[in-house]
Amino acid sequence: MIIDCHGHYTTAPAALQAFRDAQLARLKDPALPVPADPEISDDEIRQTIEDNQLRISRERGHDLTIFSPRASFMAHHVPDPATAVKWAQVCNDLIYRVTTLFPDNYAGAAQLPQTAGDPLDACVRELERCVTELGFVGCNLNPDPAGGFWSSPPLTDEYWFPLYEKMTELDVPAMIHVSTSCNPAAHTLGAHYLNADTTAFMQLVQGRLFERFPNLRFVIPHGGGAVPYHWGRFKGIATREKFPPIEDNVMTNVFFDTCVYHQPGIDLLTGVVSPDNILFASEMLGAVRGDNPDGGFPWDDTRRYIEAAKLSDDDRAKIYERNVRRVYPRLDARLRSANR
Amino acid sequence: MIIDCHGHYTTAPAALQAFRDAQLARLKDPALPVPADPEISDDEIRQTIEDNQLRISRERGHDLTIFSPRASFMAHHVPDPATAVKWAQVCNDLIYRVTTLFPDNYAGAAQLPQTAGDPLDACVRELERCVTELGFVGCNLNPDPAGGFWSSPPLTDEYWFPLYEKMTELDVPAMIHVSTSCNPAAHTLGAHYLNADTTAFMQLVQGRLFERFPNLRFVIPHGGGAVPYHWGRFKGIATREKFPPIEDNVMTNVFFDTCVYHQPGIDLLTGVVSPDNILFASEMLGAVRGDNPDGGFPWDDTRRYIEAAKLSDDDRAKIYERNVRRVYPRLDARLRSANR
Repeated sequence: MIIDCHGHYTTAPAALQAFRDAQLARLKDPALPVPADPEISDDEIRQTIEDNQLRISRERGHDLTIFSPRASFMAHHVPDPATAVKWAQVCNDLIYRVTTLFPDNYAGAAQLPQTAGDPLDACVRELERCVTELGFVGCNLNPDPAGGFWSSPPLTDEYWFPLYEKMTELDVPAMIHVSTSCNPAAHTLGAHYLNADTTAFMQLVQGRLFERFPNLRFVIPHGGGAVPYHWGRFKGIATREKFPPIEDNVMTNVFFDTCVYHQPGIDLLTGVVSPDNILFASEMLGAVRGDNPDGGFPWDDTRRYIEAAKLSDDDRAKIYERNVRRVYPRLDARLRSANR
Repeated sequence: MIIDCHGHYTTAPAALQAFRDAQLARLKDPALPVPADPEISDDEIRQTIEDNQLRISRERGHDLTIFSPRASFMAHHVPDPATAVKWAQVCNDLIYRVTTLFPDNYAGAAQLPQTAGDPLDACVRELERCVTELGFVGCNLNPDPAGGFWSSPPLTDEYWFPLYEKMTELDVPAMIHVSTSCNPAAHTLGAHYLNADTTAFMQLVQGRLFERFPNLRFVIPHGGGAVPYHWGRFKGIATREKFPPIEDNVMTNVFFDTCVYHQPGIDLLTGVVSPDNILFASEMLGAVRGDNPDGGFPWDDTRRYIEAAKLSDDDRAKIYERNVRRVYPRLDARLRSANR
């Protein structure tokens, strides 16, 4: 089977945005009423999924998607913790409904109610709720909740440890995924997302996080940012600066997805990074939509690139399915219980 | 001939660092004396070059290097403009001496006395001095003088225009090159440098800078950061967000160097980016030193990768020489006057 480990509900019904707008309006004017939870019918959810992500997944032959709230709307830079908690709950509850309406096609990954500079207690609680009550199999972790200003400590800092302890206890991985850039220097999709992938990877190279948390697992999306293209640079820097070898210190616990939207990029990724460390993903519908004019097919049809890459059938099966089941054991357990 | 467009004087004599230390000490304690200019003999310069960069250039068959002060020491985050001006002058004067001691092997590129948030008048003056008095052929421009905090406006903002006007008047290009990261989240060589390349490129994709400055030319180092690996993503985002086509709006005036330290990376770069937009470079001795254990040769021996890449002789000659002469016309003029 083919599991897409990286999808966001970018097509959520308009009532979700209206709720968010009311939340933000009330932050500016506390005299406004507490916004009611968005009213969204099952039919609306069905339609936004069936007409979009599920239609395309079926066309491309993806069997299941690990689905999370829209990344660029997480907006962890908004400084009010209570607002962040409610926003994450509403978004995650909507993902839960997608997973119950389409249980064969979607598994949930949680948005965490991070706010830059604040402790992670609320994130720990929301992760536990999503995993134990809603059946989610992972979460998204934002290494820069300030949104392009990078005011948080590196992922190797003990600031993050309470979340890592809960992730370890629940045996769920995190995808390292920033939200919108509030910095006019850094375009959200063209710079901030890729920079975050590269930055997070290098933080892990510099540290020894997985000695402390040997079962912690991170997925770095967008093909690992700049990392595979500069694999020699990272290996050379690790040697020169006397960091432990990347293979032993990082790649035991870190995985790159395949959200790289052209054949040469996927060829490099699969040629440089071990097939044990690559998880299939498309982030559809995400940053890039529309057709590659050179080929007449969508840029984000990453299955096409994986099919064309020089991979053995065994390695392709790892990328499509087995690695994802290994990194997301709660998904694996659910699939096994359904004889999949 | 083979021109390396990206070298820094990373092996400068210790007196330079002592001068800098004295400068910074006086910033903390203004009662300290104004530090005297560093005393460095011609023999010291000869030795630090001949034993290092020039020795390796000869071994690898590079004929000439465009040489600038050590990038990570530019330290534009230090907030005192007068200190920045003096530091740039001292560093550039030292580069000038390298170019006069080894006129066949080195051409100068200027460090600019940027300080985050301040106008660029001093940069304009120092660029003019370096080009008209010292014979420099280019400069390094830091898009994030805050050193990892990205507080400056995008490169398309009119804040930068006075410098672009002078660059156009003098017909010299800038390499977009940040300095040290002061942000613990972003490792200087493994994250900040690559992020800056990606960020700057995307700023140019979003804008229409070269309509205003049609003769302005930028070199984006380190193989363009994450850009070639994600070429499909950038093309797709440009289409989706209705930016002009990258080829017409950016690649007319922007060039990537070949500081990518493994064969798959160079193969991707040369396969995806037009050979008209690639300039040979090694950044030797730079971020990565030591041997690739898989090959028994130095990571930064980029000529080896270019030789092995699937390129026609004509395209290889563009990358090694002709593009550099086109982007750096003052270098071309000097070479022509020496019948090279």
